[in-house]
Amino acid sequence: MYLEKISAPSDVKQLNIEERRQLAQEMRDALLKRLSAHGGHFGPNFGMVEATIALHYVFDSPTDKIIFDVSHQSYPHKMLTGRKDAYLYPERYDDVSGYSCPEESEHDFFEIGHTSTSISLACGMAKARDITGGKGNVIAVIGDGSLSGGEALEGLDVAAELNSNFIVVVNDNDMSIAENHGGMYRNLKELRDTNGTAANNIFKAMGLEYVYVGEGNNIDALIAAFESVKDTQKPVAVHIYTQKGKGYQPAEENKENWHWCMPFDVETGESKFHFDGEDYGTLTADYLLKKMEKDPSVLAITSATPTVFGFTKDKREKAGSQFVDVGIAEETAVALASGVAKNGAKPVYGVYSTFLQRTYDQISQDVCINKSAVTFLVYAASVWGMNDVTHLGIYDIPMISNIPNLVYLAPTCKEEYFAMTEWAIEQNKYPVAVRVPSNGVIKSGREFPTDYNTLNKFEITRQGKEVAVIAVGDFYQIGEATVSALAEKGIEATLINPRFISGIDKTLLEELKKEHKIVVTLEDGILSGGFGEKIAGYYGTSEIKVLNYGFKKTFLDRYNADEILKENRITPELITEDCLFLLK
Amino acid sequence: MYLEKISAPSDVKQLNIEERRQLAQEMRDALLKRLSAHGGHFGPNFGMVEATIALHYVFDSPTDKIIFDVSHQSYPHKMLTGRKDAYLYPERYDDVSGYSCPEESEHDFFEIGHTSTSISLACGMAKARDITGGKGNVIAVIGDGSLSGGEALEGLDVAAELNSNFIVVVNDNDMSIAENHGGMYRNLKELRDTNGTAANNIFKAMGLEYVYVGEGNNIDALIAAFESVKDTQKPVAVHIYTQKGKGYQPAEENKENWHWCMPFDVETGESKFHFDGEDYGTLTADYLLKKMEKDPSVLAITSATPTVFGFTKDKREKAGSQFVDVGIAEETAVALASGVAKNGAKPVYGVYSTFLQRTYDQISQDVCINKSAVTFLVYAASVWGMNDVTHLGIYDIPMISNIPNLVYLAPTCKEEYFAMTEWAIEQNKYPVAVRVPSNGVIKSGREFPTDYNTLNKFEITRQGKEVAVIAVGDFYQIGEATVSALAEKGIEATLINPRFISGIDKTLLEELKKEHKIVVTLEDGILSGGFGEKIAGYYGTSEIKVLNYGFKKTFLDRYNADEILKENRITPELITEDCLFLLK
Repeated sequence: MYLEKISAPSDVKQLNIEERRQLAQEMRDALLKRLSAHGGHFGPNFGMVEATIALHYVFDSPTDKIIFDVSHQSYPHKMLTGRKDAYLYPERYDDVSGYSCPEESEHDFFEIGHTSTSISLACGMAKARDITGGKGNVIAVIGDGSLSGGEALEGLDVAAELNSNFIVVVNDNDMSIAENHGGMYRNLKELRDTNGTAANNIFKAMGLEYVYVGEGNNIDALIAAFESVKDTQKPVAVHIYTQKGKGYQPAEENKENWHWCMPFDVETGESKFHFDGEDYGTLTADYLLKKMEKDPSVLAITSATPTVFGFTKDKREKAGSQFVDVGIAEETAVALASGVAKNGAKPVYGVYSTFLQRTYDQISQDVCINKSAVTFLVYAASVWGMNDVTHLGIYDIPMISNIPNLVYLAPTCKEEYFAMTEWAIEQNKYPVAVRVPSNGVIKSGREFPTDYNTLNKFEITRQGKEVAVIAVGDFYQIGEATVSALAEKGIEATLINPRFISGIDKTLLEELKKEHKIVVTLEDGILSGGFGEKIAGYYGTSEIKVLNYGFKKTFLDRYNADEILKENRITPELITEDCLFLLK
Repeated sequence: MYLEKISAPSDVKQLNIEERRQLAQEMRDALLKRLSAHGGHFGPNFGMVEATIALHYVFDSPTDKIIFDVSHQSYPHKMLTGRKDAYLYPERYDDVSGYSCPEESEHDFFEIGHTSTSISLACGMAKARDITGGKGNVIAVIGDGSLSGGEALEGLDVAAELNSNFIVVVNDNDMSIAENHGGMYRNLKELRDTNGTAANNIFKAMGLEYVYVGEGNNIDALIAAFESVKDTQKPVAVHIYTQKGKGYQPAEENKENWHWCMPFDVETGESKFHFDGEDYGTLTADYLLKKMEKDPSVLAITSATPTVFGFTKDKREKAGSQFVDVGIAEETAVALASGVAKNGAKPVYGVYSTFLQRTYDQISQDVCINKSAVTFLVYAASVWGMNDVTHLGIYDIPMISNIPNLVYLAPTCKEEYFAMTEWAIEQNKYPVAVRVPSNGVIKSGREFPTDYNTLNKFEITRQGKEVAVIAVGDFYQIGEATVSALAEKGIEATLINPRFISGIDKTLLEELKKEHKIVVTLEDGILSGGFGEKIAGYYGTSEIKVLNYGFKKTFLDRYNADEILKENRITPELITEDCLFLLK
């Protein structure tokens, strides 16, 4: 076995043609075994095995610096840069993260998990090299799906001005997570169809030199191409045509489903993960499809993650022209939504909290200054969301709730989620974001108003005294449990569902002063700049004591949610303990 | 005079060839007179006179919808859409804003002041039209400078998929505010040089149809081109070559200086605005140039606003390869800075607070997760900054100070500004932003440490008791005056320069409890999600009363700073009044 003997890229250089081919097969076998047991990004990595071998055969990492966009294609790189054991031996699977990681290896330069950043980051590395008299090739590796992101397109434009060594390897597998969207993909197709010879060429139009490799899974063709650009003094794009999921039939046949996988049965390709319960994604798509049938002006918008709100292929087809996938282009998704609202239709943008970070300025300028009635459905904004450092969703409250004119709503259960979403879509006065709960689909059995026009009106769900617990969104259930825990200690506390994150109910807060000594706030996000601090600010000049619960401002990584909750004292028992201490 | 008789676009349609030419001359005369007295965007508007006449001659606004990017070229449009008086009569000059404005006219659809948004906004209008069975052309007008922005490039790509009527007019005057930067500008030149016939074509590569107009200041040529695309059912780019500043010699000759102007003498072109004092822009460029001479690894970065930190043309030339203008591409500026830092050099990104909004995700993902030692110099983050609704700089504290790992520093005077900036550049552990004061260059005569490695350490500058005033950055002087005002009332208050905005000094805050009853916070930004609320949060469980001063979360527009300060009770007298009331 060759892979077992690869402890650094220099070992790859010793292999002959046949050995390199054998290595590729071994890497695929290891990937298949690991991914079937562990889950992870499948398709992009399977497509990049040969190119990664060729990169390390031709270039000298880490003197030559390879930066992998979004890291979805970085597993083969990890296997060849001293981390093979994490792919060969089940007991070592957790040694590596799913993303490039400088702490793991000198061959990784950044923690990368958002798309479209590699070219601009690499531009900076090249620029630093040039002004400090440094050496080595700088290589950005980016998938065709990531190319449509603003940061990547800006980067291509800027790269062309470097006038020194710079290589962009474009891994074109003709797919994003789902199918690609955007006019540029017609040009990529034209280039593939003409073996790179079409006169019209997006890379050349951006000012780069250009090399095409039609056989992107042929190690020798790739080696020849990389050798031809090595040490180039002009920025160049190497466009390679690879096959997503190559080498595993189910993945070759259903590329979208196999972009990323849960543990699966290797023989059949069937997922071992079965979920029979309800989820907010599916519920939302079904709800929107019903609305669309009655109202042709409802438009669902995604930026390349259609399943975040349940729009699987069949449902996208059902929605037809009332569903838009702008591709990886979050900024445009938000601006487009504003235009849709201003021209009399009803846009609903479903997005992960972590990717909403791409759109601060568009939310502020394109939407909120213009009071465009856009509905944002914000997913995985929670400690129970994705837990890789690059995909955390717990920063949204400071980021968007402090933008003027935005109404940020936090439903506490399924019924309230749909009441709020319905109001958001049907009203025409405010930009509204709804923070989709991440603690499972909880049915309260309660009815909720469908009118939230009276902004910032909190709701008392249980009237008590001494202690008032204001529990935001999916922390409402922790609030309930806390009130119960307090009751066991003889304190009949008040429970409040604030409903609004973007403002406070001064009348209610003032009223609380009469019979309460402590106000507790609970939010599923970082404390810094968040909701609780606004309550503390309000009570700054009063006798009321305020206890804010949320997370410390820090980047977490691959954490256990229960542990994080405990560390931040967010359990009914610990909160009760704190209240009792204060009441002494 | 024809202009006097134009009260709607329909009046433009009545004019014959010669009358249209006459109208263009009258519009330029009016623009010249108004701008010489009032200031504003000069070059872009002078170049777009003919194109705007042609647009309104051919299309039927507001059924046909024209969206002007960044609004720098929207004055001629305003003149032809019922707002001529604001350009003809000095007493009416203040009737209109400098940006497109739906409140002024049904011919404007958005408040727009940031670049690169028009295409994506227009995509949304077209999409809404298509699903609701609406009518009319949708036209985005964008300058070549704005094209390099990520949102614009994403928008081009998405527009091509609309498969219905959509027109992008690209106003190519071969300039951004300063010269253009980026590889795509070579392609625009190639297109101009070949009268639009070059095979390689960025617009076609993005999937759009393409029409070229070499004589972009020839009304009849423009009319012919616009007529050829009117009611098109395929997205098309109309690339027009205009002359920036056309018709006024000084502006034709020095395009960069005449992008925007202060009031000037029409005869000579000399500015009537003279400023002999020091400004942080010039001081910063001079300081950085000195550092660059000694240290080749210092790199100054701008995204198309080089003069924000004093890099006029001569100074850019002096800096040579140690100065990078990425063009309008804020995201890439930040990512590039991260790459520069990771490869051993010292990046300094000078940027207006309002444009930093473009880069939330890049600050978080590309810089802060990776702990890249980037220095951000944040300008006009203040009530005394730009006061148009689209250019407000008072939201930066909630936006960036709550991002983990970022150190946000607030200097209170010139000496402290340079001490902090020097530390930021020379250290290698943290991403650091420095909030450049906006209350003039104030010399304190004090010496400051050059080591800020002990994070979040506040400084007591005057020890007192009862009341402690924590005054952030350029509100420090208001803090000083407040302490004096309190002294007149017999209260010897404590004054604190917190220095750090991104964290709090718990030791010092704990210590304050001993001899203080009130802690006052002062910050030059909105309260919501800001610094003061963190202090309130800290003291939530104590006896200390906290008074937070800052601005209400709202979009201000064309305001008077003194009035806003008073409205928010940010004057020494009013703060003193509040303290005395609380101490009663």
